[in-house]
Amino acid sequence: MRVQLSKRSSKPDFQGDFTRSILAAGASPDIISFAGGLPNPVSFPVKEMETAVKKVLENHGVQALQYSTAAGYEPLREWIARRYAKTLGITDVKPEEIIITNGSQQALDMMTSVLIDPGDGVVVEDPTYLAALQSFHLYDPTVYPIELREDGINCEQLEKTLAAHPAKLMYVIPNFQNPTGLTYSREVREKVAEILKKHEGLVLLEDNPYTELRYSGTPEKSFSTYLGEQCCMLGTFSKIVSPGMRVGWICVRNEELRNALLNYKVTEDLHTNIFCQMILAQYLTDNDIDEHLVSTIQLYAQKSSLMRECMAKYFPEGVTFTKPQGGMFLWATMPEGVKALDVYYAALAKGVAVCPGDPFYESQRNVRMMRINYSNSTDENIDKGIRILGDAIRQCMSGK
Amino acid sequence: MRVQLSKRSSKPDFQGDFTRSILAAGASPDIISFAGGLPNPVSFPVKEMETAVKKVLENHGVQALQYSTAAGYEPLREWIARRYAKTLGITDVKPEEIIITNGSQQALDMMTSVLIDPGDGVVVEDPTYLAALQSFHLYDPTVYPIELREDGINCEQLEKTLAAHPAKLMYVIPNFQNPTGLTYSREVREKVAEILKKHEGLVLLEDNPYTELRYSGTPEKSFSTYLGEQCCMLGTFSKIVSPGMRVGWICVRNEELRNALLNYKVTEDLHTNIFCQMILAQYLTDNDIDEHLVSTIQLYAQKSSLMRECMAKYFPEGVTFTKPQGGMFLWATMPEGVKALDVYYAALAKGVAVCPGDPFYESQRNVRMMRINYSNSTDENIDKGIRILGDAIRQCMSGK
Repeated sequence: MRVQLSKRSSKPDFQGDFTRSILAAGASPDIISFAGGLPNPVSFPVKEMETAVKKVLENHGVQALQYSTAAGYEPLREWIARRYAKTLGITDVKPEEIIITNGSQQALDMMTSVLIDPGDGVVVEDPTYLAALQSFHLYDPTVYPIELREDGINCEQLEKTLAAHPAKLMYVIPNFQNPTGLTYSREVREKVAEILKKHEGLVLLEDNPYTELRYSGTPEKSFSTYLGEQCCMLGTFSKIVSPGMRVGWICVRNEELRNALLNYKVTEDLHTNIFCQMILAQYLTDNDIDEHLVSTIQLYAQKSSLMRECMAKYFPEGVTFTKPQGGMFLWATMPEGVKALDVYYAALAKGVAVCPGDPFYESQRNVRMMRINYSNSTDENIDKGIRILGDAIRQCMSGK
Repeated sequence: MRVQLSKRSSKPDFQGDFTRSILAAGASPDIISFAGGLPNPVSFPVKEMETAVKKVLENHGVQALQYSTAAGYEPLREWIARRYAKTLGITDVKPEEIIITNGSQQALDMMTSVLIDPGDGVVVEDPTYLAALQSFHLYDPTVYPIELREDGINCEQLEKTLAAHPAKLMYVIPNFQNPTGLTYSREVREKVAEILKKHEGLVLLEDNPYTELRYSGTPEKSFSTYLGEQCCMLGTFSKIVSPGMRVGWICVRNEELRNALLNYKVTEDLHTNIFCQMILAQYLTDNDIDEHLVSTIQLYAQKSSLMRECMAKYFPEGVTFTKPQGGMFLWATMPEGVKALDVYYAALAKGVAVCPGDPFYESQRNVRMMRINYSNSTDENIDKGIRILGDAIRQCMSGK
């Protein structure tokens, strides 16, 4: 059969093949993989889930298995609203401003669909979360990548870019960013907010998947505090309870935008599975999430610290790496002239997988950065894997 | 804030507001509603689910809560493949040809996205499932509605339409169709297949949400039997186990099309919730689905029969209605000159809600048909509601 795919499906998906081949290579059981981004199972409250499911099925079995509404389960949305007050000090989020989505990945698609026509401007950090780039590219936008520095996005470049080009959407991950692990300083947040206020039609999409996983430093304010309804906030239960349940959310203060998102959500898949929403709500009612997170945060702090120690010990001089305040990733930069892709292949041949930086960039290729995940490796594998990775870098440095 | 929505979100969504207002009106507890399409809770195996969840969490807790793969849970896909062999006699479906989706609603979006560019032809039954029309319209196709008759689609009109207009996708619900309850005869199936074979690039999307809910007549073959990889089959657990879990699937024999769908699915939401997929697989392994379905099928047969008896008794002369062999809906046609919308409002004023036929048609408006759901009403409400509906029809007939 001769299949005639649509144009959007005929063009190569943004870095998709590349990413899939990298992840597949790292999936072999013989490989020490720092390539993925899996939460450590310590964050999965298996026993408590069993209790929550039992309660939900016994008390609301029919409701949990029946069709439900597009916006999501009210008690879960109430919990999220309360959490914004408690952890970010945003006290005026209303449950009706929250739409439950299939992980925050679906929210990325929803936002792009309702805002972006072909050619419309989307501003991103450079580098940024690769699957966000993939989402945006489905809608043929003009993407403006803005350099990400140690303390946040390059404000000067942002200001100039927005002055020269109209943009409808800007996407940022201000805390323990994926892929770099970097966090915006207060100064950069304030400066970015000041710039964005001058561009009224521009929606800022603040992604915050790791915000609960802070192991050092002091939390800074959400962009929502500065920008009000100009900022939409993405959130997810993936990194704190379970990614497998695929429950995330988007907090949208603007009613027109929210209605457009709800209309689109209904057409996409009617609603997010209510069974998992009710289980999560029950779990969160019966348990103290902060208590649950203690072990995850401690573990990630220890893994991150161990990995940085190993890098200091095994990496050749001239390689730098970030010092995240939380989250799941480190970002290493090799000396000029070394390609992360070469290091990737050299390390893979020795049994270690990392994620070369290339797919996280809108247009830069053959970069000298790589993302290294520490959340889901044993201490032994971190020591062994980083030693091997150091050898691979050394090999690539001497080979040039 | 001045939000600039994308063009696709700025245009009125296809009949969306209309449908929502109708469903909202029918949702009041004081209303006897035949407007929706909720499965009867008798089809929800609440107790058995509790056992299945316990097993999954105890034996595979980490896997059930961790990230998973886009195609879906292998044992569930194996079960679906075996089910095709058992119920439809299609013995060569391979598990890898099945992609798990968030209900079959998401599969509708996926198929349209990977096949349809603006202006491309999509052929539908007239009337058809309204949320399928909504899905298609997101992608700006040219929709060709083909009259649906007692024994299936109008083959002559189909043949002429396809001869005059290229089309890339055709959507049919051949068994107990939504909204009409009608089923294609073998002759019409064979004729349709013969026509489609002449249009090699056209993909037939066969939706089969109610196929397991047959209470009379003999099953006919799937279009897949005639058309091989030219036919993609949609399926869902919504009507046989639980709609709340949002687990459906699409069976795609063509590899190129399947890869395009998988790439799109990853970008949309990474994967469908694995927790519910594993629970369903466990439930289906430990229980006999045919045994479970006995009570649902008996109940729907009885409700359908009772509703038809009440219609014969209470409806004025000149009103006809379908006699489904299964599923959840009846379709009533009133005499020329009576508008279903007028009947809808007249009945609602008396406390009964139905679904007027208009939103199920691509372009016909002010039709004299209405969809009446029987799956989720008590016998008392069926008797009372149909009597009141009969009065409303009589009122509209005399008022003209």
